Amino acid sequence: MSGETILKRFPLSLEETERICRAHPTPFHLYDEESIRLNARRLLAAFSWNRGFREYFAVKATPNPFILSVLREEGFGADASSLAELVLSERSGITGESIMFSSNDTPVAEFAKASELGAIINLDDISHIPVLERACGIPEVISVRYNPGRLRAGSAIMGNPEEAKYGFTREQVFEGLATLRDKGARRFGLHSFIVSNELNAAYLADTASMLFELARDVKDRLGIRVEFVNMSGGFGIPYRPEDAPLDIEALSAEIRARYERTVVPAGLDPLALYLECGRFVTGPYGWLVSRVLHIKRIYKTHVGLDACMANLMRPAIYGAYHHVSVLGKEDRLADSLYDVTGSLCESFDRFAVDRELPEISIGDLVVIHDAGAHGHSMGFNYNGKLRSAELLLRGDGSVLEIRRAETLGDHFATLDFSKLGKFSEDGRADARDTEGRDGRR
Amino acid sequence: MSGETILKRFPLSLEETERICRAHPTPFHLYDEESIRLNARRLLAAFSWNRGFREYFAVKATPNPFILSVLREEGFGADASSLAELVLSERSGITGESIMFSSNDTPVAEFAKASELGAIINLDDISHIPVLERACGIPEVISVRYNPGRLRAGSAIMGNPEEAKYGFTREQVFEGLATLRDKGARRFGLHSFIVSNELNAAYLADTASMLFELARDVKDRLGIRVEFVNMSGGFGIPYRPEDAPLDIEALSAEIRARYERTVVPAGLDPLALYLECGRFVTGPYGWLVSRVLHIKRIYKTHVGLDACMANLMRPAIYGAYHHVSVLGKEDRLADSLYDVTGSLCESFDRFAVDRELPEISIGDLVVIHDAGAHGHSMGFNYNGKLRSAELLLRGDGSVLEIRRAETLGDHFATLDFSKLGKFSEDGRADARDTEGRDGRR
Repeated sequence: MSGETILKRFPLSLEETERICRAHPTPFHLYDEESIRLNARRLLAAFSWNRGFREYFAVKATPNPFILSVLREEGFGADASSLAELVLSERSGITGESIMFSSNDTPVAEFAKASELGAIINLDDISHIPVLERACGIPEVISVRYNPGRLRAGSAIMGNPEEAKYGFTREQVFEGLATLRDKGARRFGLHSFIVSNELNAAYLADTASMLFELARDVKDRLGIRVEFVNMSGGFGIPYRPEDAPLDIEALSAEIRARYERTVVPAGLDPLALYLECGRFVTGPYGWLVSRVLHIKRIYKTHVGLDACMANLMRPAIYGAYHHVSVLGKEDRLADSLYDVTGSLCESFDRFAVDRELPEISIGDLVVIHDAGAHGHSMGFNYNGKLRSAELLLRGDGSVLEIRRAETLGDHFATLDFSKLGKFSEDGRADARDTEGRDGRR
Repeated sequence: MSGETILKRFPLSLEETERICRAHPTPFHLYDEESIRLNARRLLAAFSWNRGFREYFAVKATPNPFILSVLREEGFGADASSLAELVLSERSGITGESIMFSSNDTPVAEFAKASELGAIINLDDISHIPVLERACGIPEVISVRYNPGRLRAGSAIMGNPEEAKYGFTREQVFEGLATLRDKGARRFGLHSFIVSNELNAAYLADTASMLFELARDVKDRLGIRVEFVNMSGGFGIPYRPEDAPLDIEALSAEIRARYERTVVPAGLDPLALYLECGRFVTGPYGWLVSRVLHIKRIYKTHVGLDACMANLMRPAIYGAYHHVSVLGKEDRLADSLYDVTGSLCESFDRFAVDRELPEISIGDLVVIHDAGAHGHSMGFNYNGKLRSAELLLRGDGSVLEIRRAETLGDHFATLDFSKLGKFSEDGRADARDTEGRDGRR
């Protein structure tokens, strides 16, 4: 706790935020467009040594078409893994090979949609080859997802690769690529995604090495020259103020060294490197802004927000740390111990446990940091909670609502209340019937 | 695994289910109305010794107005804990003191709505008294939620009471009730909810005892005669075939013995007992029905369903066991070892790990049991997954769609794509601007 000396940034003052709250009631997610653009450019610059480098933004991290449009303008593609994400990419102006369709347990209709958009299909399983062929034919360009099994250790979030549901085994990669070539594929890629939110650059570089070596082995065994390797995402962000951020330039340099060591001698240069980062791109540049409704003093002191786990699930379901700050009190001593909770009827609905913060009052604005990825997108409606709005802070200081808050009408949209009157009458008739039959209720 | 000898029930044959699938594509939740009614009657019968007994169904377990109407017809009230749940109760014909408003960290608007409906308000915190008073005045009938802190042990799901965000301390109960009486309240209740999905009848009976004793102490210290004690829910169900179900009649008899021992001598008889069961009422009578899309053989064999954790979160986020059966193969030997997975891009998206099942083929219908509570209601849209339909199997064998499946239109309802064209043009203008200013992109 006392290590929290690095001030986490929020781009607005208390006064500026209060002004936004007049038009946009809390809670809401706020994203900083300029910071996202700068970070996107930094990522592209770091890997500019690689001819053909592409970043496919993991749509599931922040599936908002305004964010996707910003990233498209910066040169990013989209990593889509469901029908909704394919459609969202399309509507954000991202089509063709700018979409990587990386799904698993894939419904046939989604292969068809990916094919219609000209997306690169990244197959998760060897048994999907005939499914894809029947659905829409084997495309010219195809990628396969490799699962190294016990050859790689796993992580807390993803588990061990050997236990995971994803990917081809090593032998299946060779068999699959040969089959795909026989069926007409001409351009090939290799993909692997085995770690999530990793801050250890060496582990990430090892994934690049693993794919470089696999590309070499594929050339040796099959004579297939792989066009790209996709090491996917998993680039972590420093959720805790004391965490060291990933040095992306150093990581890229290390990957480049391994490229020189493996790819070039194998005669595979140029081999394009693809990424599917999500969290790394937007995570630190989105915040959940919430207001304190209640201060409750029982066995512990609980700060009750107007946000809840429906707005940000990670602390509740992963026990994940998210930094919390109190607007206007950034310089005050963090001398009060709080649990910061939401209003859901669920014990785990709390954003922070035993957190040292400045003394908090009802009405204070609380910012939950690093909510720019896997934040709004993971929200549910449990307990009838409605998902909140998303706002974009633009370069000129203006704020654009890029998703409105849900209403009760949205929440009830799949219910047909008009059938309910008739249903209840039937129910009453049935109930009378039952009474008649067995003499009791 | 080999303990799984008790066959879990599903009310339809393979053929009947296939017939339903023609009109209602998988995945869907199916609820058995007759079984829910019979179970509701059983619960009421078990507690009929208690004058004034009421069950307030925990809306969050299965927030469907058709289910709520069925339960209303059986004599249940509703335990609502949010604005949406209050409105849903109202639209299901449940109003007035048939609603228990048990929330925490409550927004003022929700107190006002509860008051407008004439609901019994169960206060979670002593600091809410002035908030409620300002919002809508102190009502004639009021309940307070007691958190025993270290006086009671906790459970895996709920944690220790002392750590939880809920309720009044013991001293606050006395202080709060006195204040409420001074402010005009005339009828009083005590509430406690400290355990979830509990199959240990003794623990549940202890909660009743705890409340009976508290009611006695409240009479002794304040001269207030409590009208009801609400031991809330937490009644468990046997998710595993080898779990012994709660013997509700025996539990009720034990609670009755404690009532005779504590309540009657204290001169508090009649004291109404209230429950807020959810899971116990509908859990075993709802199923998630799904079809096998893929069989994947890598380091393990993965059965890929067309359902995913968006349809049922408990296995993924709690590691909870849900029984799985394969329609039409109930009598076959469970001699194949599978992980049963969904298609979400999330490693934990699996319904069962290392489960022994009969050999499964693509196209098989798989039933996930005990999905009648905290199933559909906890679903999210992560990864662009759409929530599925809910069907009600009626007593005459007909099937009524009581919630339609979500569409992409629903999923995108809070997005205004019409603003996107203009936004992108601005973005391009801004980008040119930036280029102008710093000479690079």
